Amino acid sequence: MTDRVESYIEENQPRFIEELKEFMRFPSVSAQRAHDGDTRACAEWLVAHLARLGFDAQLVDVGGQPIVRAAAKGKASRRAVIYGHYDVQPEDPLDEWKTPPFEPTIRDGILYGRGATDDKGQLFAHVKAVESLLATEGQLPCEVVFLIEGEEESGGDALPRYIEQAQAELACDAVIVSDSTMYDANTPAITNGLRGILAFEFTVKGPNSDVHSGAYGGAVANPAMVVVQMLAACVSPEGKVLVPHFYDDVAPLEDWEREGFGKLAFDDGALARELEVPRLHGEPGYSTLERLWARPTFEINGIFGGYQGQRSKTIIPAGATAKISIRLVPHQDPAKVRDAVFAHLRAVCPDTVRLEIPYSAMSPPVLFDVNTPVIRAAEEALRQGFGREPAFIRCGGSIPVVSTFVEQLQCPVVLMGFGLDSDRPHGPNEHFSLDSFRRGTKAAAHLLRTI
Amino acid sequence: MTDRVESYIEENQPRFIEELKEFMRFPSVSAQRAHDGDTRACAEWLVAHLARLGFDAQLVDVGGQPIVRAAAKGKASRRAVIYGHYDVQPEDPLDEWKTPPFEPTIRDGILYGRGATDDKGQLFAHVKAVESLLATEGQLPCEVVFLIEGEEESGGDALPRYIEQAQAELACDAVIVSDSTMYDANTPAITNGLRGILAFEFTVKGPNSDVHSGAYGGAVANPAMVVVQMLAACVSPEGKVLVPHFYDDVAPLEDWEREGFGKLAFDDGALARELEVPRLHGEPGYSTLERLWARPTFEINGIFGGYQGQRSKTIIPAGATAKISIRLVPHQDPAKVRDAVFAHLRAVCPDTVRLEIPYSAMSPPVLFDVNTPVIRAAEEALRQGFGREPAFIRCGGSIPVVSTFVEQLQCPVVLMGFGLDSDRPHGPNEHFSLDSFRRGTKAAAHLLRTI
Repeated sequence: MTDRVESYIEENQPRFIEELKEFMRFPSVSAQRAHDGDTRACAEWLVAHLARLGFDAQLVDVGGQPIVRAAAKGKASRRAVIYGHYDVQPEDPLDEWKTPPFEPTIRDGILYGRGATDDKGQLFAHVKAVESLLATEGQLPCEVVFLIEGEEESGGDALPRYIEQAQAELACDAVIVSDSTMYDANTPAITNGLRGILAFEFTVKGPNSDVHSGAYGGAVANPAMVVVQMLAACVSPEGKVLVPHFYDDVAPLEDWEREGFGKLAFDDGALARELEVPRLHGEPGYSTLERLWARPTFEINGIFGGYQGQRSKTIIPAGATAKISIRLVPHQDPAKVRDAVFAHLRAVCPDTVRLEIPYSAMSPPVLFDVNTPVIRAAEEALRQGFGREPAFIRCGGSIPVVSTFVEQLQCPVVLMGFGLDSDRPHGPNEHFSLDSFRRGTKAAAHLLRTI
Repeated sequence: MTDRVESYIEENQPRFIEELKEFMRFPSVSAQRAHDGDTRACAEWLVAHLARLGFDAQLVDVGGQPIVRAAAKGKASRRAVIYGHYDVQPEDPLDEWKTPPFEPTIRDGILYGRGATDDKGQLFAHVKAVESLLATEGQLPCEVVFLIEGEEESGGDALPRYIEQAQAELACDAVIVSDSTMYDANTPAITNGLRGILAFEFTVKGPNSDVHSGAYGGAVANPAMVVVQMLAACVSPEGKVLVPHFYDDVAPLEDWEREGFGKLAFDDGALARELEVPRLHGEPGYSTLERLWARPTFEINGIFGGYQGQRSKTIIPAGATAKISIRLVPHQDPAKVRDAVFAHLRAVCPDTVRLEIPYSAMSPPVLFDVNTPVIRAAEEALRQGFGREPAFIRCGGSIPVVSTFVEQLQCPVVLMGFGLDSDRPHGPNEHFSLDSFRRGTKAAAHLLRTI
């Protein structure tokens, strides 16, 4: 990388950060209809920003939240698609935020706010990388197409549908995704495997309204207790999923990867201290990294039913709901797992209540071959941008669009994350290191020159 | 009963009902601090109302919500204490009310509103009974002391503490309580047994904030899942409580009572249709009335943790809470059951999380000898007021103060309810039959003459 690009990135940091804060001020919460206006306003801001940099930028509306598409030609005819998402998770629990989620605030070189790391900060590193290349070299080293969606956090399908429609015009040599993590604050990483996801909720309905637990307790099924019994029939106290056939297609870890995980010397105690839990927990027989990266899970994301106020209200609730996310690993098939889980829930639900499963969303797990030129170019770009040797890791999370890219565009996908799990991407006080933002911008610029 | 008292009650119904509606408009929700002002205003309204009837009425403040105490002499020196409570349950879920909970509304001879049956309507029948006796006969047939508390729905201990303090001056020949039910709309009843209650909540705390279910799922215990596993370790899917020693002291039903329950010919199908559930549910081996009246239960009143909004938020929640009420039957000891339940919860809670049990409230079960003159007088008063033969029933609910009266005042307690379980006492659209209000007022007046 020329010193001019690196210097430009260094010199313009204060403005880059102010612009990122502007981007983060939009409460673009795609899961909540009340924020639809904010979400669209955020997309429009991005279009205007990319247009000012010289991109042919536009909103693409295929139903759902709009997609930002922006293209600029380059010196070479090679073409990179840079993916990101401008939508964010809901901000609750609001009272646990030290500073408001949509008022980005810097403390000790860390930028706090919803979307800081997931994904506005990481995406914006690429936006500022192209600006820096254009400003110092007059044109981009290759053609760049930004494809930035607004439904990543809500399981929408606008982008997958668009990619399918526009498959031919999106053909490219590589897709670059920065919506994942480094291994730790000092070790940049390329993610070669992602867990898939199956997310759904189910509701158990009992009496037609809340009823007195004295007058009716013992006569009628308690929907909250039924939800409890159903969930206990899905997962053992030890953390083993009890759904029949759940583990059937789980691929055992290959030796080189298990050894690689081992060498990363993951510190269980440090994670327990970070989360302030007495000790870690998970499926017996696997190390923490194996459980996080190569084993499926069944998690309750939310559970609710009945009285939630102060002290007591002695009722049997009319209904209760659980929101579930299941993380999938190669080679589990999401639809097959969904069918197995729903069949199990229906089987264990007693006939004293009514069961509803109003929706589900899913995306398959992915696993990449690491021995490709594009991946090796990314390895070198990270080495230069961060001045450190990158690691190959997997990610416990899911980036549903990655499997769409793999299937529809049939090109290499580079997962080059600048965040950390400890950035609290879906929790209160989400944050992003400004150091990683600066280094990530450099790595992103370098990658476009060598891709 | 003289025709004059009955006539007075009939003629003054419209005004009695307007006054009851006025009483019900106070949102005297004792469980919620935000309503403390309303709760006190309600108590002050009662004091003024009873003073206008000629009672020596006052608020007694011993900490907690104030107690209304009102006394009036009578022709005979015998003395009855009439108990009631002016506080009500929280109104949620608000959106299920057809008319607002604190705007009493009459539809088809039924009065709707929070407190209609529990306990403002039932209590007010006694207030109007003494008014009717005073208006037509110039004085009461016996001395009457109203003792009306404001913490029945929130497990407060102001009244028990006051009764203990004022034990000597409260000495009486009978305590009359109308905070229970008839057997059905046509069958008045005397309740000779009450379940006790143990109410508490527990919270499981995991990570110091909500964390991403992809990044951490598999590594750390999910507090909502821990709550689920703990509850599943407390109750079987069939409805049997699994806490060791839970059933140790449960008294088997005596033959005369089991036969009496059988004769009442309880209709399971009718209850299922009323509640709109596919079928009833409960501990195997017992009839519905046996389960409701003579078997203990373990109910979830509320459960919550994590995301409750639209669609998905893929987190592991920082914590989760369950609110529990356990109904106790003779001769279970609440403190012994509490100790057994808490010990079991601590035993089944894994060491990967922190467990908190912030409070508990309890009251013992009671069972009365029905062969006493006061109970027989009440039987006759109901026969006259309702024109029907009363039944002896038990109540699945708990009236904590009843055992206090039994222990402290050592006098007969008459549980003469005018409500119905189907009045939805703790749910939305709580209501009370104006027919039962009128007949209950007559029965209450008659009882004071024969007690």
